[in-house]
Amino acid sequence: MDNIVVQKYGGTSVGTPERIKNVARRVIATKEAGNKVVVVVSAMGKSTDHLVDLAREVNINPSSREMDMLLSSGEQVSIAMLAMAIGGLGHDAISLTGPQCGVKTTSYHRNARITEIQNERLLSELEAHGIVVVAGFQGMNEECDITTLGRGGSDTSAVALACALGADKCEIYTDVDGVYTTDPRKVPEAKKIDRISYDEMLELASLGAGVLHPRSVELARKNNMKLIVRSSLNENPGTEVVEVSALEKAIVSGVTMDENIVKISVLEVPDRPGIAFKLFSALAANNVFFDMIIQNVTQKNVNDITFTVKSDDLQDALAVTSKVSEELGATKVVYDEDVVKVSIVGTGIAGSADIASAFFQTLSDLGINIQMISTAEIKISCIIEKEKGEEALKALHHKFCE
Amino acid sequence: MDNIVVQKYGGTSVGTPERIKNVARRVIATKEAGNKVVVVVSAMGKSTDHLVDLAREVNINPSSREMDMLLSSGEQVSIAMLAMAIGGLGHDAISLTGPQCGVKTTSYHRNARITEIQNERLLSELEAHGIVVVAGFQGMNEECDITTLGRGGSDTSAVALACALGADKCEIYTDVDGVYTTDPRKVPEAKKIDRISYDEMLELASLGAGVLHPRSVELARKNNMKLIVRSSLNENPGTEVVEVSALEKAIVSGVTMDENIVKISVLEVPDRPGIAFKLFSALAANNVFFDMIIQNVTQKNVNDITFTVKSDDLQDALAVTSKVSEELGATKVVYDEDVVKVSIVGTGIAGSADIASAFFQTLSDLGINIQMISTAEIKISCIIEKEKGEEALKALHHKFCE
Repeated sequence: MDNIVVQKYGGTSVGTPERIKNVARRVIATKEAGNKVVVVVSAMGKSTDHLVDLAREVNINPSSREMDMLLSSGEQVSIAMLAMAIGGLGHDAISLTGPQCGVKTTSYHRNARITEIQNERLLSELEAHGIVVVAGFQGMNEECDITTLGRGGSDTSAVALACALGADKCEIYTDVDGVYTTDPRKVPEAKKIDRISYDEMLELASLGAGVLHPRSVELARKNNMKLIVRSSLNENPGTEVVEVSALEKAIVSGVTMDENIVKISVLEVPDRPGIAFKLFSALAANNVFFDMIIQNVTQKNVNDITFTVKSDDLQDALAVTSKVSEELGATKVVYDEDVVKVSIVGTGIAGSADIASAFFQTLSDLGINIQMISTAEIKISCIIEKEKGEEALKALHHKFCE
Repeated sequence: MDNIVVQKYGGTSVGTPERIKNVARRVIATKEAGNKVVVVVSAMGKSTDHLVDLAREVNINPSSREMDMLLSSGEQVSIAMLAMAIGGLGHDAISLTGPQCGVKTTSYHRNARITEIQNERLLSELEAHGIVVVAGFQGMNEECDITTLGRGGSDTSAVALACALGADKCEIYTDVDGVYTTDPRKVPEAKKIDRISYDEMLELASLGAGVLHPRSVELARKNNMKLIVRSSLNENPGTEVVEVSALEKAIVSGVTMDENIVKISVLEVPDRPGIAFKLFSALAANNVFFDMIIQNVTQKNVNDITFTVKSDDLQDALAVTSKVSEELGATKVVYDEDVVKVSIVGTGIAGSADIASAFFQTLSDLGINIQMISTAEIKISCIIEKEKGEEALKALHHKFCE
């Protein structure tokens, strides 16, 4: 059997019939180079947004199951369109929905997790047609209902299918040339990274670099699947995500800024054991993801607890936090939306005290007050005031990546 | 278990979010009257046309399988929207695609036939939720591929589901008040028919009355399923389609005009046995439906054969006819698009020579030349020139239905 290549094209890449034909040509070229190709596509352009708007007109709070039924129609359109476009160029292709290609998931609608891929049909269609076009973002639960995978779901579909098929590689096509040392729209000096480790990519993804979803990177790392991020508009080689052992030593790979965070503080919590546990388990139970916790004793037997959450989760987080803080006897809950998180990511960071001090020095030289710090094996993050974010990003990029 | 009612709403009835909410209210009212309700819906308004246009932009001759994949997304949107709208009004409902509710079909894409309905899931969801919203027009073949049922498919889905569930009745909602004695847009004197037999309805449907698809009427007749045609915009009782024995004697039920026909003639075919068989079996093999055949000897040993086909099938019919007529040694194939078929339908027709003569007399009084005649148990049809069609329709309606 030929090599198998999995390619994923996002909504922008299949946003119009013209672009779908462009994708068709790329897929055919990959096939003609001697590969069998599985193409994973998202819904066309803004069609998902359009469907969400339509739903709101009949129900402001629709059930997640029916939203999945509605939204999954979007990829069904794009897979049929792409299979037709490939057919129109004289090549054979067949489209399969998520359920048809054996993507089994949990039942958690709108945010399901893939539990298994039953690849029999996919393999036989690939053998028969050479090209199979698959609906990303969707699968089927045990009740035979259609589920969707939540944010970044199509990337995850692509990597999961690549692993299930033992593909040579998984190519994620997007509208930029690859992964950059930082956001090129904010720092023109940003450079494309040729090769990066899974761990670093995971940090960059989690910190808001936005090119790949962290779930897909994690899955690739776990299965050691070669991941390539490329542009669908040119032939540039893109960025390869590989094992760390395959890399030359690179101290700092990238610099990121996450603007979608809020800082929440619970003030004057009486100091008893298990306080943090109570608060953070309640947040977790309500699907609020927290980060960057600090707890400091301000006066005798009284703590302040500060943490960050995603901006989208602010209302949920405040509701949970207020309830718990009352139970704990805290005096007040306050929050600050006027913050950003700047981070540097790199395999070399953990082993080098110099890097941490240079990081803090750079911010200090700009007169920026560091509100919170967190460090991990391959990254350092700081919370600073929003107004200084872009200046900090540029200076850190200049210091570490230029 | 409560009574089961199957209701079908066409694309116009679910064309906008407002109209979907209107349908939701009707469905809820039916449930609150003590029924379990299965609602069969078509794709919203013009969405199918829009998808067909989209497909043409990437492939002028797309595969039928991929067209089914594309088109079936349309009903998936409308079932989710209707289930959400019912939810928004505080009632429970679940949506199911054709494949999910066990509609098994042949593999003939774009024109599949229902072979079986595996109603287990449908029954259990109906028990659990009281209202199930089902995608009309679609099913699944043995390969687990999505198929569509072709023209009138949603009516057929509704009747087939009603039969499979042992429903009390199947209500077909449309934008008119029921079945009329003739087209009210052409003849203002047209009257709504309260009750009509399956056989008459079948003739009216086949002759182009346009309210119900003949396949759905045939299926209802076979299973003796009570069929009701009503408006989705008011509470009028509509038209009941029932067994003939349930009817008062009605001589003529309706008058129809079919404008979408063409007359084709094969001239001077040498008279040998099996000529008609050759021609009409070739047409049937190419899915061209013919009607109203006449064959007359114009000179010694030479025949003219004339028949009608649907306007849509003209090109296919000419291709087949030309090929066969050459093989048969005919001199020429000619066609005439300038014709219509006017018909009267009624249970009493077969037994009454007076009706036939009144029919011909009416046309003769208008100076209309009858080009072809066909009669059956419950109808008489004539081909006449198109220009006189509307005049003939009005006169026949005046004679038999006013």
